[in-house]
Amino acid sequence: MNDKINRLRPIWLDTDSGNVRIIDQRLLPHNYVTVDLKTVDDVIRAIKEMYVRGAPLIGATGAFGVYVAALACPVDHDDCAAFILQECQRIKAARPTAVNLAWAVDRALSVLNTEQSLPDKISAALSEAIQIADEEAENCRKIGEYGLALAEEISRKKNGATVNILTHCNAGWLACVEHGTATAPIYAAFDKGIDVHVWVDETRPLNQGARLTAWELGRHGVKHTVIPDNTGGLLMRRGMVDMVIVGTDRTTYTGDVANKIGTYLKALAARDNGVPFYVALPSSTFDWELADGDMIPIEERSPDEIRYISGLVDGAEIKDALITPKESPCANFAFDVTPARLVTGFITEKGICDASPEGIKGLFPEKSPFGC
Amino acid sequence: MNDKINRLRPIWLDTDSGNVRIIDQRLLPHNYVTVDLKTVDDVIRAIKEMYVRGAPLIGATGAFGVYVAALACPVDHDDCAAFILQECQRIKAARPTAVNLAWAVDRALSVLNTEQSLPDKISAALSEAIQIADEEAENCRKIGEYGLALAEEISRKKNGATVNILTHCNAGWLACVEHGTATAPIYAAFDKGIDVHVWVDETRPLNQGARLTAWELGRHGVKHTVIPDNTGGLLMRRGMVDMVIVGTDRTTYTGDVANKIGTYLKALAARDNGVPFYVALPSSTFDWELADGDMIPIEERSPDEIRYISGLVDGAEIKDALITPKESPCANFAFDVTPARLVTGFITEKGICDASPEGIKGLFPEKSPFGC
Repeated sequence: MNDKINRLRPIWLDTDSGNVRIIDQRLLPHNYVTVDLKTVDDVIRAIKEMYVRGAPLIGATGAFGVYVAALACPVDHDDCAAFILQECQRIKAARPTAVNLAWAVDRALSVLNTEQSLPDKISAALSEAIQIADEEAENCRKIGEYGLALAEEISRKKNGATVNILTHCNAGWLACVEHGTATAPIYAAFDKGIDVHVWVDETRPLNQGARLTAWELGRHGVKHTVIPDNTGGLLMRRGMVDMVIVGTDRTTYTGDVANKIGTYLKALAARDNGVPFYVALPSSTFDWELADGDMIPIEERSPDEIRYISGLVDGAEIKDALITPKESPCANFAFDVTPARLVTGFITEKGICDASPEGIKGLFPEKSPFGC
Repeated sequence: MNDKINRLRPIWLDTDSGNVRIIDQRLLPHNYVTVDLKTVDDVIRAIKEMYVRGAPLIGATGAFGVYVAALACPVDHDDCAAFILQECQRIKAARPTAVNLAWAVDRALSVLNTEQSLPDKISAALSEAIQIADEEAENCRKIGEYGLALAEEISRKKNGATVNILTHCNAGWLACVEHGTATAPIYAAFDKGIDVHVWVDETRPLNQGARLTAWELGRHGVKHTVIPDNTGGLLMRRGMVDMVIVGTDRTTYTGDVANKIGTYLKALAARDNGVPFYVALPSSTFDWELADGDMIPIEERSPDEIRYISGLVDGAEIKDALITPKESPCANFAFDVTPARLVTGFITEKGICDASPEGIKGLFPEKSPFGC
């Protein structure tokens, strides 16, 4: 399997079929299956049901969705722009929390709208989607470069002893086209020969850590240990974590961080134990209009994602195992908000900054509302 | 099923067979199966592999284990006391963290040792085991009475609106003979007509919350919602939790609390949001010799408890589902330590006290090292 998927991205244009193709991440690490997104409904299903997930990848998928929407427009439609816009509104509504989705769809749409003919619109949307995916990959590469310095510094202070990094959920290349956000500094450190070990929060309910981050790190050869989400506090109290790095689905321009549910608890533990807590993100994940993290819409998903855990049964088949009493109510909030005061810094494609309006403005003066 | 198990305890002497009988809690909520503990190895297996769990129940099982050990002594043995002592050492070593195990075994042993003949030893051990189980049940009833006042006060302040209590793991009657520790105030409040709702942490890796607490509360008719362990922080930030109550496996006489892994993270979130955080325990769970919580031995269990999640598959059979890559290392620390500074108070059979050496001494002057 490894050969087949070397140097893979989680989304790409298949040159033979001309289809947008993704990895169905729900089936990893047990099965590697790809799915073609041929219709807007395919795109929406892939985003909503989390075949693809992670803010930058949701954005890239949304951008490719604009291309799929344009392709779906009947050639004799009397208002192609209106048709495509309507389809794109549906795509943008697929998931509420990640700001990248709306950002990428709007960006591809605006380029598409500069063209008049439908073929030109289709072509422009595809170029822009590819461009967005490439930019996200490049942003993540730069995040890795900047974050590497943090790992190097810890390694130096520890005289070359293992640098232990804790991460929550999957903010790896599966979430971000290439390199990942939170994983980019880890891969960069590993590739540079730094002795790095990753504590991988399993990340209930959908186990993106146990399934995806562990799989990614294992393929790359990075030392890692999967832990229940409950474990990080004890590890930090025992001095077994040198740094926390997580991704984010949306970060306000003031520095409040929405990320996978449970992130806030790790930030509290990091603060209580003097462990640096970094958030890695491309600037596409900043919400330049929102000042208060508690205003970020938090998606609530199906309670069945709590009741049933998906896994490989009898070494053969992926099945759902019921863990609760069948009739017990469950609540499934997908994200939480970590206030800026608990964040040591942001690792971005432009460098590292403080988790404050001023810090963010310093790196992105052209984007911050304070900079206007 | 409900009829059959009404008014049940998790351990009892079956009068027909004369056997010590337990519920195999690994199979709940899906299957209700009882197991007879006929040998010391049965007792050790039941404790180690968590057929029974929870500090007070582990203690009671240990005490019944002394009876089983005495029964196992050959009638013509030339040193029954030595034989039984050796077997009891094996029982005490079955799990390291809960202090109740050693406490209850030693207590039953010391009563047994006041008798000369083997039949008298057997009989004395049995009486003492039953006595310990009864006392734990009565202690929990009193914990419920004292804790009820806290729920009543919140209900009053909220003008009768729902009192939302978050709990971690299972510190219910399944863990404690009757009533439970953390659940005792909840049951008492419910029985008194207070509108109470419980946020049930699923409690990875073994899901004692999702499996056992949800089952218990559902049987009793108490409103509850199962949540991933990651969720409590968001709920507290949103004002959706009025109080946290947890149990403990060992608490130092200074107030540091060892409890199921993840408890510390909830205590941090409670502190950050001004939510009261209570620990409910009978005095048998205090360690009167240990001043520093970080000296409490933390059990490490099999990584396979992380890799595989047990659940009901195809509505028919309890099976293990693999969630990680098969080769990924996993770490399985069973408990963490919450420092006294994060605990609002202890709810005990003698009343409620501050989480401080002075507070504990005030309720148990005869036991605290400071009281001597």
